[in-house]
Amino acid sequence: MKIAIVGSGLVGQAWAIVFARGGHEVNMWDGDPAAVAHAQALITKQVADLHNAGLITDPAGLIARIQSVMTLEEALAGAQYAQESLPERLEMKKEIFAKMDALAAPSTVLASSTSSIPASAFTENLAGRGRCLIAHPVNPPYLVPVVEICGAPWTDAAVVQRTWDVMEGVGQKPVKIHKELKGFVLNRLQGALLREAFRLVENGYVDAEGLDVTVKEGLGLRWSFMGPFETIDLNAPDGLADYAHRFDEMYQAMSLEQTSTDHWSEDVIQKLEAQRRALLPKDKLLARRLWRDRRLMALAAHKKSAEE
Amino acid sequence: MKIAIVGSGLVGQAWAIVFARGGHEVNMWDGDPAAVAHAQALITKQVADLHNAGLITDPAGLIARIQSVMTLEEALAGAQYAQESLPERLEMKKEIFAKMDALAAPSTVLASSTSSIPASAFTENLAGRGRCLIAHPVNPPYLVPVVEICGAPWTDAAVVQRTWDVMEGVGQKPVKIHKELKGFVLNRLQGALLREAFRLVENGYVDAEGLDVTVKEGLGLRWSFMGPFETIDLNAPDGLADYAHRFDEMYQAMSLEQTSTDHWSEDVIQKLEAQRRALLPKDKLLARRLWRDRRLMALAAHKKSAEE
Repeated sequence: MKIAIVGSGLVGQAWAIVFARGGHEVNMWDGDPAAVAHAQALITKQVADLHNAGLITDPAGLIARIQSVMTLEEALAGAQYAQESLPERLEMKKEIFAKMDALAAPSTVLASSTSSIPASAFTENLAGRGRCLIAHPVNPPYLVPVVEICGAPWTDAAVVQRTWDVMEGVGQKPVKIHKELKGFVLNRLQGALLREAFRLVENGYVDAEGLDVTVKEGLGLRWSFMGPFETIDLNAPDGLADYAHRFDEMYQAMSLEQTSTDHWSEDVIQKLEAQRRALLPKDKLLARRLWRDRRLMALAAHKKSAEE
Repeated sequence: MKIAIVGSGLVGQAWAIVFARGGHEVNMWDGDPAAVAHAQALITKQVADLHNAGLITDPAGLIARIQSVMTLEEALAGAQYAQESLPERLEMKKEIFAKMDALAAPSTVLASSTSSIPASAFTENLAGRGRCLIAHPVNPPYLVPVVEICGAPWTDAAVVQRTWDVMEGVGQKPVKIHKELKGFVLNRLQGALLREAFRLVENGYVDAEGLDVTVKEGLGLRWSFMGPFETIDLNAPDGLADYAHRFDEMYQAMSLEQTSTDHWSEDVIQKLEAQRRALLPKDKLLARRLWRDRRLMALAAHKKSAEE
């Protein structure tokens, strides 16, 4: 298959790797020609890391499948699927989707990586709006495989299904979001948990380190290979409904204290920032991000072998 | 050190393994003598599983350190630390803590495994209330290392610290909860996320399987080795405060739709139950629990090697 990558920032680069790793030919384009050259160098580095971690076998072959092109028209020529990853600005999405819709063959799927703008906000007036949708990754998608797929009300069901198939075909883990909503599912769940986490620290029950330990040495372990529903399904003798009936009372009582919709206060932000900087000085952030990516690679390799 | 295990159900058995694995002598007692004999057999089985997974090296030595005793007095004789794991009933906690406080040497720490009853509810009138507190595990604690440590307002700070040291000494990951609260930290976070998860399914945005994929192939990966605060700290160029300022607006907007304190409706419970049963029939629950424990063991081994 031929894939068009529209926008070659961090997200676009990672998508290029995902599709090329999956065996597809990738045309990568960016409004800024310098950005594309820069992207090629960064891709080479990331592919080397993946190879060193034992996650891919043919780095040269993978890189050879990624071509930089000079125009959007070239990127879309012959592409069955296009993945747009420009900055999160509505006007830019409107402009690029209008161009993509005008240039691409009618059967090309046009997907956006946006994490916050619903497809209906920038595709309504397009002739080909039925082939436009969101395919929202987590960065970097070659290490974190979930992809949230969410159409506008006018997106063809067949386009949703083709996007799902494309993603599954390259080893990603697609999730269908049936209706548009703020933040899709992943950030909604993250937001609900973060809101409680900020509140617990703000009210002095726990500090940032203790809260992170509670998740990384407790709650997050089962979630990392089962998710929250399978976790509770296995946590009561008779399954999920049994669990819900046993613990509804407890969780409902807690929820009465979990309703604040305030903005995060500058006080709690600064308290948390100070606690984090005591654990990790600012000049160590970059090194720690590289550590995180190595840990994600090791976890991906572990999960692959555990699932075999 | 000598450890008293009070109550030999699933939680008590698992604690016996944790302390014996840590090199301590364990006296295990239960109000029902038949339960203790049963517990010994189950412990032998669990220790064999840990040995097969490469997580312990001397199963016979570990088992030899666990002694069943016939009276609570024998269990507490010479014990520096006692861990109570009876059923979650306030009257039982009051009764057993009164007995433990009367029988144990004044310096013995008296800890309860309760996940839902604060220490102040059953220790207020005890002469030795200053040495009583909660040490709440996740089941099974030999695979999920977090322990929430939470005293009553009258618990001595030195007792909290000794409990922390005991836990760290046997390889658990203790977290200090500074003030009593409903559900401690782990279940508060789980409750906040589950409430949003139930809501998203109830309103038709996603199904149970898609939500679990979103977590196990996305959100849960970084949380399983970093926790939520370190995750966001590394997700903005300048760290946590930078992230909070960038995304407060988005999360605050979502929170306006995340305030329901209703009980989980029977409709959504049955919808989720039906979706789970389509993925995993009821007669496969037990086999899947064994799979979960094998995956937890494999993940523990992976994390151990990744952290070395």
